[in-house]
Amino acid sequence: MLVLGIDPGIAKTGWGVVDIVGQRYRPVSFGVVKTEAKTPIESRIHAIANDVGSLATQFKVDAVSMEDIFFAKNVSSAITVAKVIGAIIQQMSLQGIPVTLFTPLQIKMAVTGYGTAEKHQVQEMVRLLLKLETVPSPDHAADSLAAAICYATNGVLGKRIGL
Amino acid sequence: MLVLGIDPGIAKTGWGVVDIVGQRYRPVSFGVVKTEAKTPIESRIHAIANDVGSLATQFKVDAVSMEDIFFAKNVSSAITVAKVIGAIIQQMSLQGIPVTLFTPLQIKMAVTGYGTAEKHQVQEMVRLLLKLETVPSPDHAADSLAAAICYATNGVLGKRIGL
Repeated sequence: MLVLGIDPGIAKTGWGVVDIVGQRYRPVSFGVVKTEAKTPIESRIHAIANDVGSLATQFKVDAVSMEDIFFAKNVSSAITVAKVIGAIIQQMSLQGIPVTLFTPLQIKMAVTGYGTAEKHQVQEMVRLLLKLETVPSPDHAADSLAAAICYATNGVLGKRIGL
Repeated sequence: MLVLGIDPGIAKTGWGVVDIVGQRYRPVSFGVVKTEAKTPIESRIHAIANDVGSLATQFKVDAVSMEDIFFAKNVSSAITVAKVIGAIIQQMSLQGIPVTLFTPLQIKMAVTGYGTAEKHQVQEMVRLLLKLETVPSPDHAADSLAAAICYATNGVLGKRIGL
């Protein structure tokens, strides 16, 4: 099953496709969608959702697993990320691809087993689980791969394929 | 020119179509899109954006004017509204209809002339400007009509039609 993990952001949205077979994970591809600060915000949101939609089509993914945002010190920035999340939800829904949101805590727990893990520990676990030689770069791509792994370990996959 | 005003919300999204001819406004139709609390959040966001998209098609609107959210006492609720805004931006962009966001302050200023106006004063001005016998109901619909009027008075219309 192909899962597209997403770490949403207005300047950089990380994405990573993971093939999940049972308890094994195979990294397929990953990267970052970027938008320019000088572009109007509505266009940036639209461009990100379109690019994510194209990636979902290109890799024929079965599901999207996205890091959610609930609270942030910078409320204005969190609201912008939430708009990106909403646009991606709409795009994926139009393409008939289910979207599941996970909190950063859920993702950390799924990948490392504990919710207070440091960022570099999450990334090192992503590297180990995906049997990569180096930590995926940039950070946003690594975080998106963690979101994809979280999808598999949170019983969503089990429920969907009837296990 | 037909403008679709939107007051976004997860439970109730107000909408109102206003025909703008010069400095005159003619109300075409208004109402509220509702979603059920028991429905998963992703489905609610998708349903709202789809319904707004259908309204835009049905009334052949030229532009969408939406109330933005920047800050709120309840951050979690603001983040949910922001997701709805993002989904509507994506849907309208796919339909090729420009979306402009205005802050609540900009909308108050546009409709009443002062930013500290009370909610009922904004609604009474909407009634007067649209020559309605009673204040549009429910509140969300009245607020969406205010957003549509704001579009006309903020020079966006002037810019678009080359005035």
